[in-house]
Amino acid sequence: MELRRKDLLGIADLTREEIALILDNAAILKEISTRSIKKVPTLRGRTVVTLFYEPSTRTRMSFEIAAKRLSADTVSLTVAASSAVKGETLADTAANLEAMRPDLLIIRHQASGAPHFLAKRLKCGVINAGDGLHEHPTQALLDMLTVKEAKGRLHGLKVAIVGDILHSRVARSNIHGFTKMGSEVTVAGPATLLPPYLDTLGVKIAPSLEEAVAGADVIMMLRIQLERMGQMFFSTLREYSKQFGLALRHLDLAKKDVIIMHPGPMNRGVEISPEVADGPHSVILDQVTNGVAVRMAVMLLLMGDKA
Amino acid sequence: MELRRKDLLGIADLTREEIALILDNAAILKEISTRSIKKVPTLRGRTVVTLFYEPSTRTRMSFEIAAKRLSADTVSLTVAASSAVKGETLADTAANLEAMRPDLLIIRHQASGAPHFLAKRLKCGVINAGDGLHEHPTQALLDMLTVKEAKGRLHGLKVAIVGDILHSRVARSNIHGFTKMGSEVTVAGPATLLPPYLDTLGVKIAPSLEEAVAGADVIMMLRIQLERMGQMFFSTLREYSKQFGLALRHLDLAKKDVIIMHPGPMNRGVEISPEVADGPHSVILDQVTNGVAVRMAVMLLLMGDKA
Amino acid sequence: MELRRKDLLGIADLTREEIALILDNAAILKEISTRSIKKVPTLRGRTVVTLFYEPSTRTRMSFEIAAKRLSADTVSLTVAASSAVKGETLADTAANLEAMRPDLLIIRHQASGAPHFLAKRLKCGVINAGDGLHEHPTQALLDMLTVKEAKGRLHGLKVAIVGDILHSRVARSNIHGFTKMGSEVTVAGPATLLPPYLDTLGVKIAPSLEEAVAGADVIMMLRIQLERMGQMFFSTLREYSKQFGLALRHLDLAKKDVIIMHPGPMNRGVEISPEVADGPHSVILDQVTNGVAVRMAVMLLLMGDKA
Repeated sequence: MELRRKDLLGIADLTREEIALILDNAAILKEISTRSIKKVPTLRGRTVVTLFYEPSTRTRMSFEIAAKRLSADTVSLTVAASSAVKGETLADTAANLEAMRPDLLIIRHQASGAPHFLAKRLKCGVINAGDGLHEHPTQALLDMLTVKEAKGRLHGLKVAIVGDILHSRVARSNIHGFTKMGSEVTVAGPATLLPPYLDTLGVKIAPSLEEAVAGADVIMMLRIQLERMGQMFFSTLREYSKQFGLALRHLDLAKKDVIIMHPGPMNRGVEISPEVADGPHSVILDQVTNGVAVRMAVMLLLMGDKA
Repeated sequence: MELRRKDLLGIADLTREEIALILDNAAILKEISTRSIKKVPTLRGRTVVTLFYEPSTRTRMSFEIAAKRLSADTVSLTVAASSAVKGETLADTAANLEAMRPDLLIIRHQASGAPHFLAKRLKCGVINAGDGLHEHPTQALLDMLTVKEAKGRLHGLKVAIVGDILHSRVARSNIHGFTKMGSEVTVAGPATLLPPYLDTLGVKIAPSLEEAVAGADVIMMLRIQLERMGQMFFSTLREYSKQFGLALRHLDLAKKDVIIMHPGPMNRGVEISPEVADGPHSVILDQVTNGVAVRMAVMLLLMGDKA
Repeated sequence: MELRRKDLLGIADLTREEIALILDNAAILKEISTRSIKKVPTLRGRTVVTLFYEPSTRTRMSFEIAAKRLSADTVSLTVAASSAVKGETLADTAANLEAMRPDLLIIRHQASGAPHFLAKRLKCGVINAGDGLHEHPTQALLDMLTVKEAKGRLHGLKVAIVGDILHSRVARSNIHGFTKMGSEVTVAGPATLLPPYLDTLGVKIAPSLEEAVAGADVIMMLRIQLERMGQMFFSTLREYSKQFGLALRHLDLAKKDVIIMHPGPMNRGVEISPEVADGPHSVILDQVTNGVAVRMAVMLLLMGDKA
């Protein structure tokens, strides 16, 4: 079976079968990164361009490593010190990049929908590496892979997602993904950080962290974006941490074999206590490892068949 | 035939035969970028260093992609957050880079003549990727390749170059190139933006955009550098656009099969209207595609024979 | 013989045998950079990550070129526009990088001890590319290789190190290295720039530049960090230059075949006169060339045997 699409823009428009296909491929490709020679020639001679309008360490690096382990050539553009300054439109930048005949464009942009806008205009494949408050599909895929590895399945699991749901593209993509795969998703967070459309997404809203994690198989803590503090979405960090920070005592409320996830970077002591982050239930670093595998799978499925 | 020089510094010092040689090689190498495996082993094990003292998306990327498609290794340095801050001289930076044994140094620098200064001191090849207000030879080569593809020849064509001629290294390199290859070049722009030396270069000066494009086979619009506004070279953007912005109605004055060029990034609605930029006469994206091919050709001709 | 360690953190903890092993390997690997095809497949499929928290042109580039000439894949992170901004701890950044399964992490950090902190926590190899005021071991290794090439030995040589000893990790690493290999090290500099622990390191302190270089086989000038001026470690540049700037006349005091070294970037006319820097005794560019060779050797010795 193959992925019959040229782009990966969001989880919302993937079928269950497509998600399963990507996860299955990722599980196989993961082995490559454990070898001494971490490289297969599959995508030799393909050109992958990363175009990041927001700073990022791990996501850009994860994509770059994934591409190199498949032997693709990579070119990295961080826009700020470049043409964005000169006032060129996104469509023109993209059309120009495409004219250099890349096979894949990986874009992170502060505007929701930017990758979709490009995908429609470009012949080359486009991967959304995070667009505004909208989606971050490879993050949700790596999260689902991590859960599937730990639990053997996604169907029938209780998944709690806690924190700033409103501003989190990670939360949105994961809500789409886990509900689609048959998990039961419950969210919790300050009332000002719960978006109004939540009821349309098939998730439950818990009034407190405690009630969200009760009986959970999976607890996913979101990063508090400190730069939103001034916007008064919540009173103080201390207050936030007290109400919605995950501590050891909360794990007793969850299933005995609960796993703890965080997309990183973590604010230790704010949304998650160090004891939990580094404890035996944490799969936070597995998420990062699986990020490379999932991105290899997506690249292979989007580019491989065109070989 | 081969290129008997170690550097590409400007169009002014190339012979007609050398220009033809580069264009012929570029036309052949262009096919590589249309393959599924866009890579030939020709320059394997060569080290190409890009050293950019000015920000750039497309030029640096075009050179990097060109190098990678020939299997060269690339190292990119954007100077600002680096030793330039520490006050090292350009000669010392370059001598140090050379001591690491690169095969080719690609430099963009705000000072006219910087690449020539380096080329004299360094054993490795130097490509000028834009020096101050002086030259940008690979841009002119890709422009000539684009015109030759569209028209089958360069000799006897009427080429109009419109805009800020004074500050444009693209204009300078193209004036040298097209006049050398037998085209007839006419320029137009605000009087404050026409340099005094134009008459020595064998170009005609038209008093208006309309007269410049009359009967033209090729219209090349230059980018208005908005940062020069404060310097009062022209009154307002609106005024500039009205007088020297290319609109659909101007195309009727030109040859029926006129082609429209722009080196990018475009200020849509200022020097060029979107209808023209995206219309059937536009070869703007072909220019970008040809940029990779021309840079592959130059790299191959400068480095290939030394294998 | 092989290097039985996973990290290179400092010269202080290397044995004489280990230093000799690295230098011997570097001397052999140096030849690769003189070939037309400057590449061997030895580290194909290994992932090398450079993580620089301080700007650098030459060191990062030297490591990148070394890695590429051994066919390793490289990913470069300059931290500032990335997660450092977001407040992630160094340990978390590193754990995340490691989860992507790199083989080697090359780190430069403003905090002394940062690479050691990481090396203890990470399974992958760590190379210290400069940590605060502490060590810069590959710089000392390339300096020792350069001296050994010029003099045939390190034992019994008189080495003068002149300048801002207090703030120089280059000086520290070299003092460890040269004393360990049997050279006799003398330092000189403004009294405010001589650290109190010097007597414990087995070096002599000379009261003046003149006395330091008297009879020297090797003179190593340190870079004056102009940003320290405001901190009043010395009165004026002019005064500094007069007292501790190396000029032609000083060479007469040294051995006839003295060699002059500088780690770069140089402040010409401050700590070293142009006549000396560019004169026949200078081996400053050899140092840079040897930097690539030494880094290839270290990478090979740290990663090669695990193949």
